Amino acid sequence: MIEAAQTLDGWYVLHEFRSMDWASWKLVSEKERTEAVEELIQYLEKLNEADVAKTGSHAFYSIVGQKADFVLMTLRETMEELNELETEFNKLAIADFTVPTYSYVSVVELSNYLASKKNEDSDAPAEDPYQNPHVRARLYPELPRWNHICFYPMDKRRQKGANWYMLDMDERREMMRSHGMIGRGYAGRVKQIISGSIGFDDHEWGVTLFANDVLEFKKLIYEMRFDEVSARYAEFGEFFVGNILDNEKLVKMLSV
Amino acid sequence: MIEAAQTLDGWYVLHEFRSMDWASWKLVSEKERTEAVEELIQYLEKLNEADVAKTGSHAFYSIVGQKADFVLMTLRETMEELNELETEFNKLAIADFTVPTYSYVSVVELSNYLASKKNEDSDAPAEDPYQNPHVRARLYPELPRWNHICFYPMDKRRQKGANWYMLDMDERREMMRSHGMIGRGYAGRVKQIISGSIGFDDHEWGVTLFANDVLEFKKLIYEMRFDEVSARYAEFGEFFVGNILDNEKLVKMLSV
Amino acid sequence: MIEAAQTLDGWYVLHEFRSMDWASWKLVSEKERTEAVEELIQYLEKLNEADVAKTGSHAFYSIVGQKADFVLMTLRETMEELNELETEFNKLAIADFTVPTYSYVSVVELSNYLASKKNEDSDAPAEDPYQNPHVRARLYPELPRWNHICFYPMDKRRQKGANWYMLDMDERREMMRSHGMIGRGYAGRVKQIISGSIGFDDHEWGVTLFANDVLEFKKLIYEMRFDEVSARYAEFGEFFVGNILDNEKLVKMLSV
Amino acid sequence: MIEAAQTLDGWYVLHEFRSMDWASWKLVSEKERTEAVEELIQYLEKLNEADVAKTGSHAFYSIVGQKADFVLMTLRETMEELNELETEFNKLAIADFTVPTYSYVSVVELSNYLASKKNEDSDAPAEDPYQNPHVRARLYPELPRWNHICFYPMDKRRQKGANWYMLDMDERREMMRSHGMIGRGYAGRVKQIISGSIGFDDHEWGVTLFANDVLEFKKLIYEMRFDEVSARYAEFGEFFVGNILDNEKLVKMLSV
Amino acid sequence: MIEAAQTLDGWYVLHEFRSMDWASWKLVSEKERTEAVEELIQYLEKLNEADVAKTGSHAFYSIVGQKADFVLMTLRETMEELNELETEFNKLAIADFTVPTYSYVSVVELSNYLASKKNEDSDAPAEDPYQNPHVRARLYPELPRWNHICFYPMDKRRQKGANWYMLDMDERREMMRSHGMIGRGYAGRVKQIISGSIGFDDHEWGVTLFANDVLEFKKLIYEMRFDEVSARYAEFGEFFVGNILDNEKLVKMLSV
Repeated sequence: MIEAAQTLDGWYVLHEFRSMDWASWKLVSEKERTEAVEELIQYLEKLNEADVAKTGSHAFYSIVGQKADFVLMTLRETMEELNELETEFNKLAIADFTVPTYSYVSVVELSNYLASKKNEDSDAPAEDPYQNPHVRARLYPELPRWNHICFYPMDKRRQKGANWYMLDMDERREMMRSHGMIGRGYAGRVKQIISGSIGFDDHEWGVTLFANDVLEFKKLIYEMRFDEVSARYAEFGEFFVGNILDNEKLVKMLSV
Repeated sequence: MIEAAQTLDGWYVLHEFRSMDWASWKLVSEKERTEAVEELIQYLEKLNEADVAKTGSHAFYSIVGQKADFVLMTLRETMEELNELETEFNKLAIADFTVPTYSYVSVVELSNYLASKKNEDSDAPAEDPYQNPHVRARLYPELPRWNHICFYPMDKRRQKGANWYMLDMDERREMMRSHGMIGRGYAGRVKQIISGSIGFDDHEWGVTLFANDVLEFKKLIYEMRFDEVSARYAEFGEFFVGNILDNEKLVKMLSV
Repeated sequence: MIEAAQTLDGWYVLHEFRSMDWASWKLVSEKERTEAVEELIQYLEKLNEADVAKTGSHAFYSIVGQKADFVLMTLRETMEELNELETEFNKLAIADFTVPTYSYVSVVELSNYLASKKNEDSDAPAEDPYQNPHVRARLYPELPRWNHICFYPMDKRRQKGANWYMLDMDERREMMRSHGMIGRGYAGRVKQIISGSIGFDDHEWGVTLFANDVLEFKKLIYEMRFDEVSARYAEFGEFFVGNILDNEKLVKMLSV
Repeated sequence: MIEAAQTLDGWYVLHEFRSMDWASWKLVSEKERTEAVEELIQYLEKLNEADVAKTGSHAFYSIVGQKADFVLMTLRETMEELNELETEFNKLAIADFTVPTYSYVSVVELSNYLASKKNEDSDAPAEDPYQNPHVRARLYPELPRWNHICFYPMDKRRQKGANWYMLDMDERREMMRSHGMIGRGYAGRVKQIISGSIGFDDHEWGVTLFANDVLEFKKLIYEMRFDEVSARYAEFGEFFVGNILDNEKLVKMLSV
Repeated sequence: MIEAAQTLDGWYVLHEFRSMDWASWKLVSEKERTEAVEELIQYLEKLNEADVAKTGSHAFYSIVGQKADFVLMTLRETMEELNELETEFNKLAIADFTVPTYSYVSVVELSNYLASKKNEDSDAPAEDPYQNPHVRARLYPELPRWNHICFYPMDKRRQKGANWYMLDMDERREMMRSHGMIGRGYAGRVKQIISGSIGFDDHEWGVTLFANDVLEFKKLIYEMRFDEVSARYAEFGEFFVGNILDNEKLVKMLSV
């Protein structure tokens, strides 16, 4: 009998990728555009109140290439809040000039692969990990305002000869530790949010990375690809990369 | 010669996922929108008459992310009724402001994998399972009004080295029992409807889950993924997750 | 050297699946709609003249779910006639309110897998199978007016370890016979039309089933899935299921 | 070290599949339609001048089913000419009433698999194959005006256990010869144009067949499928089948 | 422990493929079209200033077939610049008459597979490769103005029995060297830009080729396909091929 991984779960996450319908956007009056941008900025500032109150977090980036013009990533305590924010966005004037191109639903996740083994074997009463400040900082993360974002969903393979879900817990734990070591080599340069999406979206996990130097994304993921857990067991979905959008950049991007 | 599984079949099921065309919805008058919402509510109330009469059931949820804005899941005694309800929906005013994004056609199904073996071997005349109240409650289920819904279609693999349909009945039964045990651990927290769709839609089964805590979906499906029947034999389609929509929430969602 | 299967080929077949553009359909006048429906009915009646003259056949069904609103399946003596009927449909007023969603081009086919072996080995001069009334009834079938239709395209696998086209004729014949036995168990309840589409469309065969009880489709295909020829060698495309549309039902479906 | 196949390359080929936007086509005046058809016929006649001058060739067929309404296949001496003809078509009035549905870019190709071995081993100075009239007739083919066309793109597999590109030249040559023998059995009934598309389009080859009896396509491709080179090494893309369109048929097809 | 490949990374690259919306383009006035083309030419000339200043480079080609009407490939020092140029294009008048059809985000890359081994083992202080003029010429390439372009993205396989990322560095290096030898045989006839896209787009690399004779693309890629690194380990995405567009050709292409 295979031992299932256990998870700690934090904030729910919605990634919303949208493209501008530039032709329509240019057709309306300067005034209409200005109002729509101001309304969008108000919406973003309202989102930011949750960041300040530490009841959620969000990130807003432009996307390079035709897959989208921007991504809005929102973290909240409940799935209902995400749904309400999504509907609220759809009611903004700017939404009529955008086309939804991709979205992802997940929840920030920590697995017990990386938990200290000592804790598990100890006779001491287990502490409630949800009370541990280090754990809380990872489950309820304050998204950084770094220059770049990278997002991709992924699965672990269930193939003949490479079936992650048929491996012993110890094997999986060992591989995840080795994998984690690579990530640690990028500490301070790449911030990584892993969110679980089994039952919520088409892949098993979403991976969101932040960096000030966009090249770090490529270096990290390429290095990991030679690590057994990626080389043998990972399946990747679409990749998105982008640049931070503050109000000034947003206004500039949308001014025509 | 491989022994085929036998099924008991209940109500026919249609899942209809639709997105709002928000830009068009905002363009029409407040009065037109109000009338369209009222007409939709009447339609839903008419659907509910079958729930009350126990001649069918339905569920109505908003969907998180861009795959859809809502899902209407309808269970009826015949495929013709499902088709009529679908056409009736298309004739509603609200339908002109929606875009069909995904649908699934199936029939509530119980397989003999989980039937008691004793029954099968006994000399006693077999009872008609369609008269058994426990069986009837599962074939003709009253859909709960729980907070969350999760839907996904799936197949069993027919690959070299992992061909479900080439396994002995006993092996399949044993694996399904072990699988069922995991589900039982979520009794009272997750309600599961399995519907068969061979010959009706692109996958072999649809799985619809209900829960008050949305995290239970992820925990249940993740735990099952380490079980052999999922780990080795399951292929999954798209996943959808949503929040319950009562009339009040519906009105709020559609008011712009 | 592998012995290729031989086929007898009958009428050419076109399956046309279309969805209604309900929003546009509601926009035009009652009179315009009535005329369009009457013109469609005339078109269907003209199709039916070939049924009566036994120079072709056709079936017209609504489709459940969002894949289409209806399917028109037409059998004719030549590919040119199918093409003309298709173009003629496109010129109907109703066509402007429909969206093509899927089509399939094939020819009714009988393979020599099921031919009597005795015939083949006999010294008697082989009769021309195209003169055999039983064969003719299958190559030039009168489509039944049963309650339900089911359509799906399929292939035989050419994988390592499961390559249908590398098997001996005798092995293939034996498996097809066993497969045919399952079908025979549904005689009188399910009518099956196999049409070959190698060179004509994306899969190797189209399978069209008719039944008065829609559940028979699922039971038949599920039972067959445990048979080696399906379990090991079949790849399936999309599945469509529907309900018969006579003029009365058609008028009702299209009245808004 | 695997010996790569050598090719002789002739005219560049563009297959353009398009559907009519029938609803728009019906909306404009009879006069506008007549002028658009006349302009299209002039365009086709201009294409034909290259056929006459033997500086190119073209074929024009209607397509059965919803994949397209017609295909225009054009062969020219340079990729630039194909591009210009494509752009010229886009500027025709008729183009505004069509929707591009599929295209394929390739170059007529002969491989050295079928070259006579004697030639290769001989001490005699090799003749320039581009001067050989038989070779030229195949590299710069005059497309026939036969009743039917069939087009599909294909690849050779590079899988474990079935990797065409890891086989010895002799093995590949032997299989291609056996394959060619089947084709020869259809001489005079099916004309085949093989065009290479590595570096030009998504598959490795395009196959265009012409026949007066459309059933020959199915018989030929089905027979070939049992031959090892297809059975084990071929991957097929989409299939298109159609009927010849002369001016008279074109006018009839487009008259509404 | 598998040794990861190291890369040198140069300019960031954006490939943007777009189709013309010819019907809309014809609808506007000659004057509007002329102004839009002039504005586009100004945009291209501004792009060219970076080519002159050697702070970037660009290429502009028409595309053959329906995948796109043209591609604009832009190289710049930062991802932000690419994003700004993309947004600037979207604000051009011509953009309203185009449809985005495909894009690719990457960074010019040199791997250490081809680095001289001597250097690595030497005791001499390693020179900074970013100061080496030969390396710089490849990382910051001046795109040629040759007649033809070819673009395709690709991956290295991670399959059972063919897992590139589980091979020893020496094996990979040996295969890449043999692969490079084929490329060298096309020196002066085909110019190749390899750009890495792990973390940036859906495949691992983009390959852009330039040639004056379009047939060289097919010959090179076909020859490489028999080389083990392609035959066994390569997975290819879509292929695009095109012809150079200078201002004169652009004006001609867009004049209607």
